[in-house]
Amino acid sequence: MYDVAAIRADFPILGREINGKPLVYLDNGASAQKPKVVIDAVTQAYSMEYANVHRGLFYLSNLATEKYEAVRGTIARFLNVADEDEIVLNTGTTEGINTVAYGWAMPRLEAGDEIILSVMEHHANIVPWHFLRERQGVVIKWVEIEADGSLDPQKVIDAMGPKTRLVAVTHMSNVLGTRVDVAPICAAARERGIATLIDGSQAAVHGPVDVDALGCDFYAITGHKLYGPSGSGAIFMKKARMAEMRPFMGGGDMIKEVHRDGILYNDPPMKFEAGTPSIVATIGLGAALEYMMGHGMDNIAAHEAALTQYARGRLDGLNWLQIQGKAAGKGAIFSFTLDGAAHAHDISTILDKKGVAVRAGHHCAGPLMDHLGVTATCRASFGMYNTEAEVDALIDALELAHDLFA
Amino acid sequence: MYDVAAIRADFPILGREINGKPLVYLDNGASAQKPKVVIDAVTQAYSMEYANVHRGLFYLSNLATEKYEAVRGTIARFLNVADEDEIVLNTGTTEGINTVAYGWAMPRLEAGDEIILSVMEHHANIVPWHFLRERQGVVIKWVEIEADGSLDPQKVIDAMGPKTRLVAVTHMSNVLGTRVDVAPICAAARERGIATLIDGSQAAVHGPVDVDALGCDFYAITGHKLYGPSGSGAIFMKKARMAEMRPFMGGGDMIKEVHRDGILYNDPPMKFEAGTPSIVATIGLGAALEYMMGHGMDNIAAHEAALTQYARGRLDGLNWLQIQGKAAGKGAIFSFTLDGAAHAHDISTILDKKGVAVRAGHHCAGPLMDHLGVTATCRASFGMYNTEAEVDALIDALELAHDLFA
Repeated sequence: MYDVAAIRADFPILGREINGKPLVYLDNGASAQKPKVVIDAVTQAYSMEYANVHRGLFYLSNLATEKYEAVRGTIARFLNVADEDEIVLNTGTTEGINTVAYGWAMPRLEAGDEIILSVMEHHANIVPWHFLRERQGVVIKWVEIEADGSLDPQKVIDAMGPKTRLVAVTHMSNVLGTRVDVAPICAAARERGIATLIDGSQAAVHGPVDVDALGCDFYAITGHKLYGPSGSGAIFMKKARMAEMRPFMGGGDMIKEVHRDGILYNDPPMKFEAGTPSIVATIGLGAALEYMMGHGMDNIAAHEAALTQYARGRLDGLNWLQIQGKAAGKGAIFSFTLDGAAHAHDISTILDKKGVAVRAGHHCAGPLMDHLGVTATCRASFGMYNTEAEVDALIDALELAHDLFA
Repeated sequence: MYDVAAIRADFPILGREINGKPLVYLDNGASAQKPKVVIDAVTQAYSMEYANVHRGLFYLSNLATEKYEAVRGTIARFLNVADEDEIVLNTGTTEGINTVAYGWAMPRLEAGDEIILSVMEHHANIVPWHFLRERQGVVIKWVEIEADGSLDPQKVIDAMGPKTRLVAVTHMSNVLGTRVDVAPICAAARERGIATLIDGSQAAVHGPVDVDALGCDFYAITGHKLYGPSGSGAIFMKKARMAEMRPFMGGGDMIKEVHRDGILYNDPPMKFEAGTPSIVATIGLGAALEYMMGHGMDNIAAHEAALTQYARGRLDGLNWLQIQGKAAGKGAIFSFTLDGAAHAHDISTILDKKGVAVRAGHHCAGPLMDHLGVTATCRASFGMYNTEAEVDALIDALELAHDLFA
């Protein structure tokens, strides 16, 4: 039984008011709020169990190391990865994708080699590849989306050619809510010896992810969207790919030996984890994933599917509002513009007066904005704690905004 | 009036016991404990004031952005940097130095160009330069230290030649406690057009730092050693150097525009801050630095100087123990080995039974270990909350260890 009222009670911030109105937090696509178990895990770590990890032999260091390293296993379980040594702990998707760009692609791709992206990628899955375009002449091939905002896997497969070295696509659009059927893409790429990176920043938040079934080489997640602390995250990297990679950041922990004239790197995953990590944020991420799995990823998905259906019905009733992205099975993320209305930023500001927090802007998806022919949209993005009553509050606030700008 | 008992009461973990003994935490060189104001700042941010920063227009996002961005100013004040836009927020020194290595050095240094390091650098200030050696033939020139563990600035200056492009040295050794007089090094480098990077990971913890007076190009600090959260940090980068640099990590925030065929980077410092940052850890770091400055950096330095003198006197009384590093004015960091004793790891384990937390190992300073002719040392490193009574506890525990191994 999924008890959304009980879940809401676990998140302290959801009890607060904004501008005299109850907070209606619909910016989960940017970052999610944190349940008390996460905040408590952070507090406990700093108050009673803190030390640096890996290199200490005393009680507190061993304790912190055990708690920190246990999260690797939690993430492996969360993503259905059998070998937790394929999980690299980091600060989020941006670091994860840059690790692949610098560690795998940079030393390997030559001028003319191709990377395939969809036009709805987030900047975190675009800019590292633009670096390779600017710096070493790698070619980015863009795959179009359909009119409903869906991405046809066959179009990605058709884009693969003899020069294609990597396909990097999102598992769920942060703007449109589109889910991407990445398994056939990964299978086709594997047949052709092409590597695959899946940006799971959004998809992992809204339902179960089975990396083993997806068959990708890299799968990136970010903790702060998963109800965990900011500055936490991880990336799955297949062992065979890890073996091909050079390290990304240099520092402590990722080495076995350092001498004046030589260096011996640590074994993966440590080879890709330099310096003192985000110890406590990672421990908090472990608590967040346990919290989600405790409620059941299928249950979260079912709750959000019902919420999506309800929100879609109500938003479709506003004939002066255009939803961007109507793909079947889309997630609970709604980007929209208003007829004749002022800039999306003004809509967001009016909604805020009613306590409704939505984002306005390009949502770190420049090429998608170009494709849609807009400079900005408003985006209401839902999470495991949102309710139909909050959809109603959004609609009421939008009607007010529409009245003001009509 | 520096009231160490009151300060200790601010750190919850210092009230706990380890193995039935009061915790004597002497691993500050690896990571420091956190005062309640830091833990509370983190809790408050997650409980009542959390949202993603920079791109939101609603109340919580503005509030989080204000609190996050205020830390840039706090760090500038802490380091005596006039222009806070010269402060790049990050996850710590490792990321900071890698930003310089990838963003400034990699596109600029050619085979045969030289980087000068001292032999007592931390791996965070070695491995990124080894990358350049391995990948593009850059030459690392090592400067020796003196028998007492001091680094003669003149020897660093003498090492500068026509091929030298960068001098990267620590401001305080994490193993020996040696303080380095970096101002003349930076002045000489500036005259020769050589860039300077100072690793302030340790020095900034133990006394006032005046980056303006040091005259360096880059100065890296790490939050978790500064009584702040793990995963926080910053690097000072001179504007002129920032202008020479290409971005390091790619993602959100560090761009102005992203299109299919082109990209427009954000202005510094944002150009060097990709993706959702460690928002809350950074807010906690701000609280930590305010806490330190509230007690007075000069007062902290004076307290630790007295503690160093006391510890040195007592340790010198143990004629079966060898202190590594006896430079004048050294900080409160003592590495040592015991005559005829077992491995440093065993010493650490025995001390832990008495509640005394010290580190044993190579301390992420491989070349220094080679120089000293040891594979490992024990290290007791002190902080603003340590006391003479804790020095006594250390001595008692060491005597026990000596008895056991004698």
